[in-house]
Amino acid sequence: MNRILITITAVVLCAASTFAQLDPVKQTREYRIANERKLLTSFVEMLAMPNVASDTANINRNADYLIGSMKQRGLNPRLLKAADPKVPPVVFGEYFTPGATKTVIFYAHYDGQPTEAADWTGSKPWEPVLRSASLEKGGKTIPFPRTGETIDPEWRIYARSASDDKAGVFAILTAFDALIAKGIKPTVNIKFFFEGEEEAGSPNLKEILEKHIDLLKADAFIVCDGPVHQSGRKQVVFGVRGDVNVDLTVYGAKRPLHSGHYGNWSPNPALLLAKLLASMKDDFGNITIKGWNDDVEQLGPAELKAIADAPQYDEQLKRELGIAYTEGGGKSLLERINLPSLNINGIKSGDVGDRARNVIPTTATTVLDLRLVKGNDHIRQVAKLRKHIESQGYYVIDRAPTDEERQKYHRIAKFNHVPGSYNAQRTKMDLPISIAVIAAVQRTSAQPVVQMPSLGGSLPLSIISEALGQPTISVPIANHDNNQHAENENVRLQNLWDGIETFAALMTMNFR
Amino acid sequence: MNRILITITAVVLCAASTFAQLDPVKQTREYRIANERKLLTSFVEMLAMPNVASDTANINRNADYLIGSMKQRGLNPRLLKAADPKVPPVVFGEYFTPGATKTVIFYAHYDGQPTEAADWTGSKPWEPVLRSASLEKGGKTIPFPRTGETIDPEWRIYARSASDDKAGVFAILTAFDALIAKGIKPTVNIKFFFEGEEEAGSPNLKEILEKHIDLLKADAFIVCDGPVHQSGRKQVVFGVRGDVNVDLTVYGAKRPLHSGHYGNWSPNPALLLAKLLASMKDDFGNITIKGWNDDVEQLGPAELKAIADAPQYDEQLKRELGIAYTEGGGKSLLERINLPSLNINGIKSGDVGDRARNVIPTTATTVLDLRLVKGNDHIRQVAKLRKHIESQGYYVIDRAPTDEERQKYHRIAKFNHVPGSYNAQRTKMDLPISIAVIAAVQRTSAQPVVQMPSLGGSLPLSIISEALGQPTISVPIANHDNNQHAENENVRLQNLWDGIETFAALMTMNFR
Repeated sequence: MNRILITITAVVLCAASTFAQLDPVKQTREYRIANERKLLTSFVEMLAMPNVASDTANINRNADYLIGSMKQRGLNPRLLKAADPKVPPVVFGEYFTPGATKTVIFYAHYDGQPTEAADWTGSKPWEPVLRSASLEKGGKTIPFPRTGETIDPEWRIYARSASDDKAGVFAILTAFDALIAKGIKPTVNIKFFFEGEEEAGSPNLKEILEKHIDLLKADAFIVCDGPVHQSGRKQVVFGVRGDVNVDLTVYGAKRPLHSGHYGNWSPNPALLLAKLLASMKDDFGNITIKGWNDDVEQLGPAELKAIADAPQYDEQLKRELGIAYTEGGGKSLLERINLPSLNINGIKSGDVGDRARNVIPTTATTVLDLRLVKGNDHIRQVAKLRKHIESQGYYVIDRAPTDEERQKYHRIAKFNHVPGSYNAQRTKMDLPISIAVIAAVQRTSAQPVVQMPSLGGSLPLSIISEALGQPTISVPIANHDNNQHAENENVRLQNLWDGIETFAALMTMNFR
Repeated sequence: MNRILITITAVVLCAASTFAQLDPVKQTREYRIANERKLLTSFVEMLAMPNVASDTANINRNADYLIGSMKQRGLNPRLLKAADPKVPPVVFGEYFTPGATKTVIFYAHYDGQPTEAADWTGSKPWEPVLRSASLEKGGKTIPFPRTGETIDPEWRIYARSASDDKAGVFAILTAFDALIAKGIKPTVNIKFFFEGEEEAGSPNLKEILEKHIDLLKADAFIVCDGPVHQSGRKQVVFGVRGDVNVDLTVYGAKRPLHSGHYGNWSPNPALLLAKLLASMKDDFGNITIKGWNDDVEQLGPAELKAIADAPQYDEQLKRELGIAYTEGGGKSLLERINLPSLNINGIKSGDVGDRARNVIPTTATTVLDLRLVKGNDHIRQVAKLRKHIESQGYYVIDRAPTDEERQKYHRIAKFNHVPGSYNAQRTKMDLPISIAVIAAVQRTSAQPVVQMPSLGGSLPLSIISEALGQPTISVPIANHDNNQHAENENVRLQNLWDGIETFAALMTMNFR
């Protein structure tokens, strides 16, 4: 037992007698206010480490950093690994609360989406900067505060994973620190579970979970990821959508052709792809692929009520986003995210801008993102998309065409179901853990907490609930305008501060 | 008068008495065979200079190199410049043939299309390599031949501008060298005119022509650019299409959004662009924009006969290109290139491949290439396209939208008519110069020369004929599978050798 652990244990024991009187949320706030500058420094240190899952050397740096900082807290950390040594490990830790009968796993992920430094405005992904406000509202880079300087909670940190999802890792660990420092005893045993390849689609999560099934025994799995409600109100989310990516390429001639000599005779793959994508949605953005919504499990009365009670925020959001029109013929965002979706993440054919040339490109490529709801199956949903492409006259294969195939088929598409897809997951809103979580989060907020049957985004929660048999509930903390998954990702400091209180409340919730 | 010039002049004078007996084509061939290795070395030297028009330092290196090599030939070279010093100069030179009554300008351009080294296969744009055959046919890099080694005419040089259009510059200068070396007197006064920004759309050519109108007095303007017929037969081309580029961007939300949280509610610009482009052509690739073909000047009987007499090459071409389908409902390539076209040169929205992320992109951009035929006007044609986009519900502007516009209009398109567009040009096929050119090229070939009313590609010939009042005729020399304008541009050596003979024949044609 090292010295730090002895100290922490001593603090816990000494504080045991005063547990009943202290308000965990208030105490956590006091702790945060007293330590803001130090907290900021340590968060920025974490953000400065590049964390794309495929960047093995750097992802291991992140994991080692977390192991180190969890060791300092006496959390008996270890790396949970897959068989393949290149798979980013889960960083696991645990804290046994004397007398607790329930165990809760707190989840966040320390990897981030790939990004190009050149796409960022005025800063780089892994060189965190502080801004006076959001870029969209004219926020300027400001120096990090020195000792004694006031920290404005409207400031934002710009860096990859500032919100998605090192904010989650940070909030969970800091909530724990605050409780221990203030001598407040959690109500549950705590297991810390920080994943390292969520943004790569968690292709090895199932293996890791099943390999450590005994270590991961618990009564609930609480996930910190994603944004709070657009209104700024806190939310508890009982489900997430499933996610599938499909890479699709269509073909023109074998070599790039001069657009003057051959244009409008040799097929243009960009036009073919435009026609194919256009065939997938009507003019209102409704998906026209046969049977797309057929498997959808209808929402129950509790879920429908939760949606009806949620703040009406669409018009404000449209103003903020600078859009006068929405897909889906006027249906609300909440209605839309409870349906399976089809999104074009990217298209590329030839070049534009300074690199544009007068050629007919040889190929046109798109990446499609399919979100799934409860009832959908990712294999079935991808099959519907493939069948639609075939119905548009395409010969569909999973590799580049051969010369023989080129001679035989008018239209050829290469169609690849990207690995790492998973189904949707939804936990019932009337389970004891559901009620306890809602009550705990409500304790931290004067405004009513938004209760969402499902988030629009995805997490591999179906993998977790299937492997561990535990209910999963998400408690997001990031600001909704965080540019998650894009360039200029950021977190608003007030959201970071609020997140710490939220997780302190969850670690002391009424779930025994 | 320097020593080299004295030598050349002496050669010309000494050879004068034997002019009548010598066959210029045969003599040129002998000259080439005797000098192949040296010619290859000097051509490769020219190709090793980067030559994108916007790269001022390098484009000037190319111009200086040409000035130097024309000085050695005693061609009294000079740079014809626009007012703006950044405009790539025309390199001009002249040779007065004693007793000649006609003057012909020989044109080629020394600039090349922009390109990315990373897109090339096994070589770099400005580091020429020799291959044993085309890449598509498995050609391998081979060392440049040493003295005495046999040079296979099926070898190819891979480099930017190997065919488009330093092959033209090289063929014209070498043809002249061969005639002089062999003591053959041209039949016409020769003016050399090498342009430096053709691939940028010749935005300053008009200014340069008008500024030097006296210097450029001549009876015809012969252009060496573009490929020979796909059958391998030589061709004479009496017209070229006009060319216009349009940059088009459509808009989604102001910031990139998570495709799970907002997908299928917030508008996806890639989908909007796909729908918009799909609306411009029917399923057979016929353009559906109102009035697109309305201004087309119908071909006369001579032109229709020339098209009918041209080799039927479409099926072979389709096999070679690996396509089983063509746009235009089965019409031949020759029919198609005598109509105005609309080609998608590039599309980009978000990212694909390793950089793909689950986002809704903020914009989708395309570059369109419009080719024009005689009768079309580039301003009118662009107006038809713009009107079509408006008819699809778009508010069309020439800059990014303001916040107010975003609130007001469902669909917004930024539409920019790229500078440097020009109309089509066609010279009558029964003028004395037309007849002389056909006869001269026919002299170099056992197979009938293909006579084309118009090439599919474009050259700023309308600018030339309007400014100088001269008939323009094109005599292309490159292999048709040269990857012109794309990565892996190349020239087949036999085409280079044939091109020298073609221009020697033109410099000695029966046009007095």
